[in-house]
Amino acid sequence: MPMDPRHAILFEPVRIGPKTLPNRFYQVPHASGFGTRRPRAQAAFRGVRAEGGWGGVCVEYAPVSPDSDEIPAVAANIWADGDGPALALTAAAIHAHGALAGLELVHGGAGSANGSSRLPRIAPSQAASGVQWGGLAKEMTRDDIGRVQRDWVSAARRACDAGFDIVYVYGAHGYLLSQFFSPQTNHRTDGYGGSLANRGRFWLETLAAVRDKVGGECAIATRVTVHGDPGVPGAAGLPGIEVEEMLALVAMADELVDLWDVTVGAWPDDSGTSRYFPEGHQRPWTHRVREATAKPVVAVGRYTSPDLMAEIIRTGAVDLIGSARQAIADPFLPRKVAEGRLDEIRECTGSNICILREETFRQIGCAQNATAGEEYRRGWHPEIFGPTSDDRPVLVVGGGPAGMECAVVLGKRGFTAVHLAEAQAELGGRLRWIRRLPTLGDWGRIVDWRRVQLSQLTAVQVITGCRLTRRDVLQYGASVVVVATGSSWRGDGVQPGHPAPMPGADSRAPHVLTPEQVCAGQRPPGRRVIVYDTDGYFMGPALAELLAAEGFDVTVATVYPVLSPVSDETLEGETLRAHLHRAGVGVCHGVTVTAVDSSAVHGVDRYGDPWTAECDGVVLVTQQVSQDALYRELTADPSALEQAGIAAVHLVGDAVAPRLISEAVFDGHRLGREIDRADAGLPALWRSERPNPAGPAPRR
Amino acid sequence: MPMDPRHAILFEPVRIGPKTLPNRFYQVPHASGFGTRRPRAQAAFRGVRAEGGWGGVCVEYAPVSPDSDEIPAVAANIWADGDGPALALTAAAIHAHGALAGLELVHGGAGSANGSSRLPRIAPSQAASGVQWGGLAKEMTRDDIGRVQRDWVSAARRACDAGFDIVYVYGAHGYLLSQFFSPQTNHRTDGYGGSLANRGRFWLETLAAVRDKVGGECAIATRVTVHGDPGVPGAAGLPGIEVEEMLALVAMADELVDLWDVTVGAWPDDSGTSRYFPEGHQRPWTHRVREATAKPVVAVGRYTSPDLMAEIIRTGAVDLIGSARQAIADPFLPRKVAEGRLDEIRECTGSNICILREETFRQIGCAQNATAGEEYRRGWHPEIFGPTSDDRPVLVVGGGPAGMECAVVLGKRGFTAVHLAEAQAELGGRLRWIRRLPTLGDWGRIVDWRRVQLSQLTAVQVITGCRLTRRDVLQYGASVVVVATGSSWRGDGVQPGHPAPMPGADSRAPHVLTPEQVCAGQRPPGRRVIVYDTDGYFMGPALAELLAAEGFDVTVATVYPVLSPVSDETLEGETLRAHLHRAGVGVCHGVTVTAVDSSAVHGVDRYGDPWTAECDGVVLVTQQVSQDALYRELTADPSALEQAGIAAVHLVGDAVAPRLISEAVFDGHRLGREIDRADAGLPALWRSERPNPAGPAPRR
Repeated sequence: MPMDPRHAILFEPVRIGPKTLPNRFYQVPHASGFGTRRPRAQAAFRGVRAEGGWGGVCVEYAPVSPDSDEIPAVAANIWADGDGPALALTAAAIHAHGALAGLELVHGGAGSANGSSRLPRIAPSQAASGVQWGGLAKEMTRDDIGRVQRDWVSAARRACDAGFDIVYVYGAHGYLLSQFFSPQTNHRTDGYGGSLANRGRFWLETLAAVRDKVGGECAIATRVTVHGDPGVPGAAGLPGIEVEEMLALVAMADELVDLWDVTVGAWPDDSGTSRYFPEGHQRPWTHRVREATAKPVVAVGRYTSPDLMAEIIRTGAVDLIGSARQAIADPFLPRKVAEGRLDEIRECTGSNICILREETFRQIGCAQNATAGEEYRRGWHPEIFGPTSDDRPVLVVGGGPAGMECAVVLGKRGFTAVHLAEAQAELGGRLRWIRRLPTLGDWGRIVDWRRVQLSQLTAVQVITGCRLTRRDVLQYGASVVVVATGSSWRGDGVQPGHPAPMPGADSRAPHVLTPEQVCAGQRPPGRRVIVYDTDGYFMGPALAELLAAEGFDVTVATVYPVLSPVSDETLEGETLRAHLHRAGVGVCHGVTVTAVDSSAVHGVDRYGDPWTAECDGVVLVTQQVSQDALYRELTADPSALEQAGIAAVHLVGDAVAPRLISEAVFDGHRLGREIDRADAGLPALWRSERPNPAGPAPRR
Repeated sequence: MPMDPRHAILFEPVRIGPKTLPNRFYQVPHASGFGTRRPRAQAAFRGVRAEGGWGGVCVEYAPVSPDSDEIPAVAANIWADGDGPALALTAAAIHAHGALAGLELVHGGAGSANGSSRLPRIAPSQAASGVQWGGLAKEMTRDDIGRVQRDWVSAARRACDAGFDIVYVYGAHGYLLSQFFSPQTNHRTDGYGGSLANRGRFWLETLAAVRDKVGGECAIATRVTVHGDPGVPGAAGLPGIEVEEMLALVAMADELVDLWDVTVGAWPDDSGTSRYFPEGHQRPWTHRVREATAKPVVAVGRYTSPDLMAEIIRTGAVDLIGSARQAIADPFLPRKVAEGRLDEIRECTGSNICILREETFRQIGCAQNATAGEEYRRGWHPEIFGPTSDDRPVLVVGGGPAGMECAVVLGKRGFTAVHLAEAQAELGGRLRWIRRLPTLGDWGRIVDWRRVQLSQLTAVQVITGCRLTRRDVLQYGASVVVVATGSSWRGDGVQPGHPAPMPGADSRAPHVLTPEQVCAGQRPPGRRVIVYDTDGYFMGPALAELLAAEGFDVTVATVYPVLSPVSDETLEGETLRAHLHRAGVGVCHGVTVTAVDSSAVHGVDRYGDPWTAECDGVVLVTQQVSQDALYRELTADPSALEQAGIAAVHLVGDAVAPRLISEAVFDGHRLGREIDRADAGLPALWRSERPNPAGPAPRR
């Protein structure tokens, strides 16, 4: 289909300094988990974004000095000459598709982990870091200032030599440049502290030095943060920089900068999840920067709609559509827009699973796009599916995330007869009801995208409202069966570390409820409810919010010292806890419930001392259990399978083991890709990237 | 000096299966942070332990299957053929010094992170992991059981081929074999669950299969855990295995095993810190295993004394002295014993900094031995110091950990005139008083070892009770000055995120105390004391314990959701919190104190709501400040330095930036090694190990 003319504006080239971006789609710097540690994975990951049409593709943070070492996180270190070749591979992969390659040159200052280098952190003033424990930072001497600036210039030189078109003098997210600029972290009394001009001096000098060295060859970008809401403290250690001060810096630095990259608020706000932040919440503030400069401006906003993107460009709020999460979820968004294939756009759910994986030091992953990060290692392309000559009919039982994903992949691979059978009247598995919980609506995009894909795949037939028994499956006529029957919450109080059912916990009783029962409309017999949470993620808080909104007096009792610790890894923790507090939900921390009755829950506190709370009902968010009975019944009788002509039965998703939804999608995808391998139940061994233990020692 | 004849028993060879250990010193498997990711660093680290006389040297956990992927932790993966060469380098480095090389073949089961592989965890029964969040484990099918056993055999074959002499069928620390053996995690109803014989079947079958494959070439070791105190739950997810059941397993498996490696209790107990566990607390329980087998037995006990080691061997409690932490702290302990150089033994402090670094995904480090982990990367040998031709006189000002370490290194390198000047009457810096706090006595070993070394280095002169002014330093006659003047706790309430002094916080007032003041004997004017802790490690709890023991009514108010979160990384967290609770210390979690007066502290709770606690005094464990005035005074006047003949002034340790003591020692060591470089203020660039981004793709 042709492009919608309204979207043509998105495909205009944009000049930035000595370079020209081929269009307005710009993948801003974001972590991948590859850094320079896995050069081939990095190159393939970024190369696919360029192939998908992003006109600018940036690599994650590239520390310019060894005292900005990010270990245990994986960064694209560029402080040594030996780092160049790894990054050159990525620049070449981006160039192969006509995009410009950008590199986020950065110094983390007080926020550097220095877990490998063991060097002291450095900062404008001796201070604790908001994001690192274990010691204060060293107050930088004038020698340190000059040394870091020289390091930045050397790094820019290496980046240019490695083929990058855009180099950052990166100041956002509370890194060293911001630490100098903020009066909250800069208490110097020399020429680098005090007045706005003094606090901006380190930034401006660095920009000038980098421009002096590589300005003719590379575009110079700088990323700034403005605080959108002055009342909101920087949740991730970001110093408070008021927008007026930042605009003054923009004016001072404008002639040194080819591209302004603008973030708003602390990282948990700028990369806020769909649960708590609308798309484009940053616009009022980025617009202020737009007014202060004639240079191109880029900003993110978790935009998924090309209509909205085009409108934003037309209003002049920004010149480029910045994206991290949407480019992870759908690297081919620009090409789909260009080709008018809008219903194929895989919209980001805004759940920040990508960030959870980075924050827990894993490689990148995505709830929507199972291929993210697997481009090199497993050879997965987001839009190209290894075709199959296998034309065996496949029956997928269960239309939740794993089953839908598997059926989509099978359909795209060219399997000729795929049936997806779902017991309920609609597809979606547990997302059918999770998406209706407070704040969780956008998670439904996982279902929606797959439902549209399935509707377009003629080889895949979807049957809903049809619960298949073992006998049904044997008679179905399939040669390969995929069981994706999901999981459910336990109603017996079994919880981590307590494998036996809990006395009094029985979800057949009116005062004991599972999440499914609550979502199906069951309510406790009285006003006072305890939500007992050993899960630690979204379910307990969402149910508590639902019940509180209905007027119940809700307390979450959690085994953890904070409510929903997993949400800290998705950057939601502080927001979620404040949100629940405002909703009137109480929290008891560090308690383990070991028995329930119709008027109370009983257990122990964090010291093992007895603890009791009166209530009229309890919601058990304790542990799930795989619903794999069908799989067990089928595989228990191999001869029946043989007689039925069923060559293989596979189990995927939460029916294997209840996990994050992203992992269920991954599991379904993996099986779809590999179902025609001899040993399809196990994944094919992926490609590793190892240092060569033989031969000469590597370059420093 | 000759060996003490009492120690000769430690140097007897011990036969294990087809191999013979040259002596009884055995470095048990422990993490290094190198795994197979940094093969040269791994080889150099282990090779130095062999060089130092450990007769057996083992590499850390080597997962046999991709669903035992430990990412984000770094393991010595051996599930693919491409993994062999990296490990062969290490085996060769161990053999070069006549030691036997061991490899910890393991499957983590439900405790596997699978952060890279994204595979489901597997376990005997579907269950939550005690150590991993984000999903339950898959209940293993019979196919899974057979597959893991085949993986184990393949891994053993690769290990043998790579040159290892000892392969583990590793069951301790709650890994998969233990998960099968424990009725708490194994609820199977097939032949692998139920009776003791059934629960042990997976273990025994695996042992038999590995022995069948490599038993003639390699010794087969197995590591088991017995619960010492049945009343203590496994703090790190270890299932409860009673000693009687384990002894039955030992009897059943004895003919399949060449070496029994015994751990006691959960990891936080077996690797318990000196704060809460005496040396050798495991002995009563390991002795039980010793009685149940005729095969050699090894166990750890954080032993540092060769007299005690020899006695333990003589009593027959074990056959080999197992060590992880002491071998990190002093790789040359065996050779020092053999050569009668007992006062050179660098005793482990038992502070578990090594484990903190591993638990936070860094490479190994040690509070006592700055060279640990730096053998390849920085080329540091624990006993050999790059000699110098630099004979400039050096003055080290400040005899804390950093200054002492620097002076020791300078002395060992052959500097001819080193003076170490300490203002106080005794060496030690802040460890002088920290070592006197409850539970922290063994940390004093950092001072003691260096004091003995300094007393033996004739080129180093130690002057105590002598506080040098700028003028004194200029007149001293030194060419190089090292300022190691440490840090102190602030008395003004400045804390992380709050750079301005706190209203009412003034340690000149009787009701406001710093840690130093408490340790110097100052006490609050009344009985009720708040210890306000934003530090999060040992200081707040130790002061609280001290004051509670004196009868004060003590509450720790902490900004963190748990007391002393850093202690969780040293495995002390749960023990510390129970210890303080028993001592009668109360805790207020998640509060930020923003003002103090003579009758209360005032602040906000975790939601920002007002919070107040009445008290008669407050101890501020908020933030430290570097004591670098001398350095600033000296460097402010370069011409005076020139006139005085002082070519360089360096700052090290907490005077640069207050950090963990291990980092101050590291800093002093680093400067001592590199002080004669042109740019000695900055560390020399170390060797990296990178995948080669060019050339053919690596082997799978």
